[in-house]
Amino acid sequence: MLRLKKLGIDTCHETVAFLARRCPLYRAQEFVALARIEIMGGGRRIVATLNIVDDESIMASDELGLSLLAHRQLGLADGTEVEIAQAAAPVSLEHVRAKIDGAVLPPEAYRAIAQDLVAHRYSKMEIAAFLIASARFTTAPEVLSLTRAMASVGSRLSWNGGMIVDKHCIGGVPGNRTSMIVVPIVAAHGLKIPKTSSRAITSPAGTADTMEVLARVDVGTDEMHEIVAEENGCLVWGGHANLSPADDVLISVERPLSIDTPEQMVASILSKKLAAGSTHLVLDLPVGPTSKLRSRESFVRLRKLFEYISDEVGLETIIVGTDGSQPVGCGIGPWLEARDVLQVLEGDPAAPRDLRDRALLLAGHVLEFDPALRGGRGIARARELLESGAALAKMRRLIAAQGPSPAADELGVLRHDVVAARDGVVTVIDCLRLARIARLAGAPIDKGAGVDLFKKIGDPVAKDEPLYRIHAAFDADFRFAAKFAADGDGYAISGVS
Amino acid sequence: MLRLKKLGIDTCHETVAFLARRCPLYRAQEFVALARIEIMGGGRRIVATLNIVDDESIMASDELGLSLLAHRQLGLADGTEVEIAQAAAPVSLEHVRAKIDGAVLPPEAYRAIAQDLVAHRYSKMEIAAFLIASARFTTAPEVLSLTRAMASVGSRLSWNGGMIVDKHCIGGVPGNRTSMIVVPIVAAHGLKIPKTSSRAITSPAGTADTMEVLARVDVGTDEMHEIVAEENGCLVWGGHANLSPADDVLISVERPLSIDTPEQMVASILSKKLAAGSTHLVLDLPVGPTSKLRSRESFVRLRKLFEYISDEVGLETIIVGTDGSQPVGCGIGPWLEARDVLQVLEGDPAAPRDLRDRALLLAGHVLEFDPALRGGRGIARARELLESGAALAKMRRLIAAQGPSPAADELGVLRHDVVAARDGVVTVIDCLRLARIARLAGAPIDKGAGVDLFKKIGDPVAKDEPLYRIHAAFDADFRFAAKFAADGDGYAISGVS
Repeated sequence: MLRLKKLGIDTCHETVAFLARRCPLYRAQEFVALARIEIMGGGRRIVATLNIVDDESIMASDELGLSLLAHRQLGLADGTEVEIAQAAAPVSLEHVRAKIDGAVLPPEAYRAIAQDLVAHRYSKMEIAAFLIASARFTTAPEVLSLTRAMASVGSRLSWNGGMIVDKHCIGGVPGNRTSMIVVPIVAAHGLKIPKTSSRAITSPAGTADTMEVLARVDVGTDEMHEIVAEENGCLVWGGHANLSPADDVLISVERPLSIDTPEQMVASILSKKLAAGSTHLVLDLPVGPTSKLRSRESFVRLRKLFEYISDEVGLETIIVGTDGSQPVGCGIGPWLEARDVLQVLEGDPAAPRDLRDRALLLAGHVLEFDPALRGGRGIARARELLESGAALAKMRRLIAAQGPSPAADELGVLRHDVVAARDGVVTVIDCLRLARIARLAGAPIDKGAGVDLFKKIGDPVAKDEPLYRIHAAFDADFRFAAKFAADGDGYAISGVS
Repeated sequence: MLRLKKLGIDTCHETVAFLARRCPLYRAQEFVALARIEIMGGGRRIVATLNIVDDESIMASDELGLSLLAHRQLGLADGTEVEIAQAAAPVSLEHVRAKIDGAVLPPEAYRAIAQDLVAHRYSKMEIAAFLIASARFTTAPEVLSLTRAMASVGSRLSWNGGMIVDKHCIGGVPGNRTSMIVVPIVAAHGLKIPKTSSRAITSPAGTADTMEVLARVDVGTDEMHEIVAEENGCLVWGGHANLSPADDVLISVERPLSIDTPEQMVASILSKKLAAGSTHLVLDLPVGPTSKLRSRESFVRLRKLFEYISDEVGLETIIVGTDGSQPVGCGIGPWLEARDVLQVLEGDPAAPRDLRDRALLLAGHVLEFDPALRGGRGIARARELLESGAALAKMRRLIAAQGPSPAADELGVLRHDVVAARDGVVTVIDCLRLARIARLAGAPIDKGAGVDLFKKIGDPVAKDEPLYRIHAAFDADFRFAAKFAADGDGYAISGVS
């Protein structure tokens, strides 16, 4: 028997096991060709991808090393005796093969796939196989099956009946931090809006990162229920709720492969909303040349898929197409975006108008779900709650309920202004490039890093006038970001020639 | 700058880098989302998949660990200072994306993909994406482009003009070790047949494993040229020749995913033959219920694809459909298969007749390539060379030229006879199951392990009469193999009921 050893190696969403090449109990070569092994011990079993270790300082020859995820999943102590065997392919892989061959899969196939994904029985290669076969074509009923399957594997939040409203944006537009304005407005009105958000993975800030500038977001589900019972809302990180964990596994492969199909996006978002117990949803779909949706046609196609799946799963959904041609607000990065949000809530005259208008539009749509409100009054009611200070008061109560943030970041002190190369009018701001600059500057890990925009589309500028300011906390990041901006500032300026 | 450290971790065909979570120079979280990083130092750069290390006993926080392949590829000494950055996706991945979207790719796309594969710029996920997108549909002209691209990346053997003949089997039938009989016959006749073979990866024996029972096969290309100049032939392991290395990279993902499309098989085999400098080829395609080709239709489809690509690349190819309904010869496993081969060459009356007939058939087809031989005389000439002892003499000269084997394995001393459950006649032998039993017994790593068949299809058997004997060298293997055979012996016997 091999003795288990936890190795401090994080292999992301893949379970990995390490076997010594000179293992006296198993011959490593025997196992390497098919890459996946099954590990059995203490009445438990998991599947892992195999690496071979030559260096006895990493582990002894009669040990079996496990990556952090594999170790957590097997749940046995170091030194426990385990056996290994070639792993059979996960049973649901037969459905993936059928999909590769062009089949339309039935609901039970998607259930089996979702279960095996969550149990980490798929290697990254196998996940890629599923995604690529699906990207080739997936029918709308298959998207429905996948959505239901992903929602049913993992936890579900339960709210004891009644209307649970939610608001979501598909992303891609920096600074579009409307949730932090919509939630206090809606909660102040009295609808229940328990908002769970993600941290940024490839963008410069997620709602959880930004809220964390103001309050603790690492809140367990029990505590979240208490806060919502008291305040009608919350703005917390969704990591504790284990909603649609199959989606997290798929995302770990979609992202490096840059797979971003409408079908995956719809199943991903709606499975999480279903698992979160939402009954009513407003979806923000920004359209613009550098956002995720680049044409009216792609917007309509995605809208219809969202509508079809929402109707089938009984989620009342309103889709709002918005302007995705440039960042929303001025700040890009957690600290700067939190500043914009507070300016809007506080009625500060310096508050970015576009962020305020966008938040009111979306909050208005959410409020229209309230049967007690006269039809068409949603946006006026939202404005009333904002202008009266009721939304700000609610935000302060949410912050108090969630507690102080463990982060104490200030705005990055390293500053660099990027200036206009000519006189003229701003005609284009590249969302992707500005997001990249903010990330290079350190966002979202350094909450005070990012980009502060001084000019938006339509603004006149003079040569050498600052377009935006880069903020960073660390010198290396600062130089990377400034250099990247020097290679292309992301702005186009049309001038009188 | 990070200091390089080679970690003794073998990650197969994927380059992997290890960064400390508490690295003071780079923030690990920044890099993990997109999984691939670029490593630069000493004027060199490679791309690798990133793992995060929490344990400082594995590496220090200012070090960058590299897996064995990554370390070899970067080619820098431990302690060298290196920088890292997020890796851009390999440029050729745009073609893979086009393929996912259903495009027919031009030849230059396949060249770019093959080059990036060989440079290990693709992660396993990306390789899987290419394979699955291709499995969905690949046109014959695309197979041609892929074949040419794979042959052109890597080394090419050059033989100074003239006819270079070769013989290949697509595999799947245990014991089908005809190359070791065909090569001495053809070389004795005087045609040049420089045979490079692979070691088994998932089967119980490859030709290189079996030849290694008799002689050294780990022969460099210069030495191989010398042997062929002297003897007209050789039977060596192809690993030194670096033929179609892109194929090896694809196989490292095809195998765990069990992707085995006709298109990939044709490109794989013919690219290696092209790179090996072959001009004439006889291809053995066994058809049977448990072999790779299970129907006449799949045989014809594969035959036509082989013919089309061969014609286009100017390789004179004859396809021979053979009986793949049961193992060929008696032995399964290197030592036992080498015994069968020697019995045939020595004219031993105990020699398996089916192996002898199959080898003569194929050798006859190869000899028909000789313009000096009268049409239709190939098989008679092959028989003449076998029966006269000329082939045996040539085999002895090849063994002498290649030198003694470093392996000194004897037939496995642990023995277990699997017996017939009833009286009757053998009607089915399952190739896959027998191969699996031989592998569990230790083949090909233990050359003396395997299965020795006493009964073939059509043979009458009495209840409790031995069907085959399992040989193993190690107790654990022996028990695994015997247990697996007890769960299903792979034989069907029809009896008088």
